[in-house]
This record gives sequence, C-alpha cells and structure tokens, in this order.
Amino acid sequence: MDVLVELCLIPQGGDISLSDDIAECQKIFRARGLSHQLHAFGTNVEGEWDNVMGAIKACHERVHERGRVRILSTLKIATRSDRQQSLRAKVVSVEEKLTDGHVKDA
Amino acid sequence: MDVLVELCLIPQGGDISLSDDIAECQKIFRARGLSHQLHAFGTNVEGEWDNVMGAIKACHERVHERGRVRILSTLKIATRSDRQQSLRAKVVSVEEKLTDGHVKDA
Amino acid sequence: MDVLVELCLIPQGGDISLSDDIAECQKIFRARGLSHQLHAFGTNVEGEWDNVMGAIKACHERVHERGRVRILSTLKIATRSDRQQSLRAKVVSVEEKLTDGHVKDA
Amino acid sequence: MDVLVELCLIPQGGDISLSDDIAECQKIFRARGLSHQLHAFGTNVEGEWDNVMGAIKACHERVHERGRVRILSTLKIATRSDRQQSLRAKVVSVEEKLTDGHVKDA
Repeated sequence: MDVLVELCLIPQGGDISLSDDIAECQKIFRARGLSHQLHAFGTNVEGEWDNVMGAIKACHERVHERGRVRILSTLKIATRSDRQQSLRAKVVSVEEKLTDGHVKDA
Repeated sequence: MDVLVELCLIPQGGDISLSDDIAECQKIFRARGLSHQLHAFGTNVEGEWDNVMGAIKACHERVHERGRVRILSTLKIATRSDRQQSLRAKVVSVEEKLTDGHVKDA
Repeated sequence: MDVLVELCLIPQGGDISLSDDIAECQKIFRARGLSHQLHAFGTNVEGEWDNVMGAIKACHERVHERGRVRILSTLKIATRSDRQQSLRAKVVSVEEKLTDGHVKDA
Repeated sequence: MDVLVELCLIPQGGDISLSDDIAECQKIFRARGLSHQLHAFGTNVEGEWDNVMGAIKACHERVHERGRVRILSTLKIATRSDRQQSLRAKVVSVEEKLTDGHVKDA
C-alpha cells in the first residue's frame, strides 16, 4: 500500500530551536530513498507504507538519541485504493483550477 | 518503544456518516489488546510502537475493503525516552492542577 | 455558525511539563461558559465559532504571558450546515454501532 | 499578534475530489492579501491573527455554500512572543543545516 504522509515532529522542552532535529529527519528520508518535500509546517513524504512508517519511527529514535526526551509528532496519512496518487498531483490539481478561469478571480 | 497515539481517520467521498468506519477501527484495537479511548475527535491508543502502527495500517486496509477509496488520517504520536507515560497520567496531571488551588479559579 | 474544536496546545522549549499551561487553557474555556472535555491529546470544545476561536486566541496569549515564547497548536475544526452536532453525539453514534450487534465482534 | 497557520480543509461526503474546494480557499487568502503557499497537505498562511482566522472562517462558509454539508479542518497555529517569524525563515533554517556540513551526510 502506497502512502502520502506529512510529518511535523516537535521535541518538547529544552532548546527552542528545532532546525537541527528536523534536519536529522531529512537525512533519514534521504537515506531511505523516499521522495520528500520540506515546508514550513512539516515534511511531505511519499512511498510504500512500511518504508515511510519505518522512517518516521527512525526519526523519533534519532531525535531521542540527540537528547530530546519528549517528542510529539503530528502526521497526516493519505491512502487511495482506486488509483495512484502523488504529492505533486495533489498540488497540480488545485493549481489547474486557479489558472483555467474556472474559479480564478471569478 | 512505547507510544501514545491519537487516530482520527476520515474517509473522503461517499456516505457522510463515518460511525460505521470508526466502529470497525475500534474492533481492530480491541482485537490487538490495545488500550484505547474513543472521544469526539478520534481514538487515543497506547502500546508498543509496531503493534499500534500495525493497527493503524489495518484500519486503513479495513476501511478501504469496506469500499472507501480515499482516506485521510490525522495522527498524533507521543514518545518519551525518560520515563513511562500513559493516556491516563496525561489527563490526571492537568486535573490535579485544576483542583489543588494552584490555578483553579485563581 | 456553531463549531466543534479540538485544541492541542504545545509550548516549545523550556519546562518539559505542559500541565500548568493546559490547566490555564481549561480555565479560559470555563470562564467563557464553553462546554469542553479534556483528554490525553487535547481538549474538545463546542460553541459558537467566534467565542470558541476567541478562547483559543486567549489561550495563546495567556501561555505567552506565562513566559512561553514559542507555541504550536494543532486544531481540528468541525462544522455542519445540515444539522446540529455535538461532542456527545459524535461519540454516541460510534458506541451504538459497537453495542447493537452490527459490527461488534462480528 | 502575528501567526503562521497551516490549513487542511476536508469536506466529508459527496464528490471525492477536493480541488475545487481548495481552490476557493486560495481565492479567499488572495483576496485578503495574505501571503500563502499551497502544498500537498494544506496551505500555509501568514498574517495577523484575526485576519488569518477570519479567512479560515470564510473558507468554511464558502465551502458550505458550495453544497458541502460537513467539513473537518486541521490547523496548525504557530505564534512567538520573542521575535518575528515567517514561513520562509522556518524552511531556510533547516535547509542551512543540510548544506553547511553540520549534519549533511555526516
């Protein structure tokens, strides 16, 4: 089962800056060959369910190893049984509606 | 690694009522012996990481089998490396603050 | 417009315990007469949109006043245009499915 | 109070495609002069609290007007009391960690 996931991982307590922790997570996605895109509220990832979820477990483990004792992650998980989906296609389908005169500045 | 998870599973399209799908997910948690608590915006579950995440994968598979072709789930995942945590303890720690005069109607 | 909301407010950095901050938020909901229910991953609230959202703004302001300089909240917001909804009814509709033989241990 | 928000609005029931509804929300952000960025799991928006939250209320109202009777939105809300923040800066701070040799392929 393929899956699209958004991960927003938040270490609680300690250093207020999260960018080092988030960078470590990016490295985990890269090492697993998972297509991913960083944005201001998380990282969007696509791949096979077990590979993606294994990466998210590895993120928690890695951030704990770095000394963060408490983590709260928020995930969105999208699956479809009718057809293939992709991170890119989800954005394109909205952008097309905004540029074809259908709803743009209607 | 033990984990506390909140699952809010939303089938998109089709029947506007979700209660049959949510009830199926409750059955999956029960069958796996996972302690869980239903509330108005999801189900809180506690257990070992792989068991809980396996249950969530089973929820997606089961709801697709029921004919829902598109699912979006929102998860919160809480882990701690310093000590045990539980769904119950998280609520109690707040309730104590509300009843000991510390902040209650201060 | 009436709304059901789940608020999960997470101060980042500093003290790892959040229970004092969460207790302050409970006080804000109570002071506004908003029906609310604490659970392990947040507080579910029901009321009129502007009243509920005003309470959530007040929660951010109050927790900042307490010295937390960075806050991330996760909200779920449910609205319906076809009929009244309530926190209680959402839970009951699932529980009925689990006890009427429809899906229970089917 | 300035705020960064991620909105993921999900109409339940009916047409399985959401892109028309999401496009309508983009128009609302644009009409209010709010800086925003669409991604695969939502739209990130920055601005003053009341303006951004007013836009989100307008999104719910507009999607209901289009015939969707049930909506569930997931929001992330980020505020800081110590300094200015921006959607762009949050991404840049991570990207710098990935390119300066600090953690990249370490």
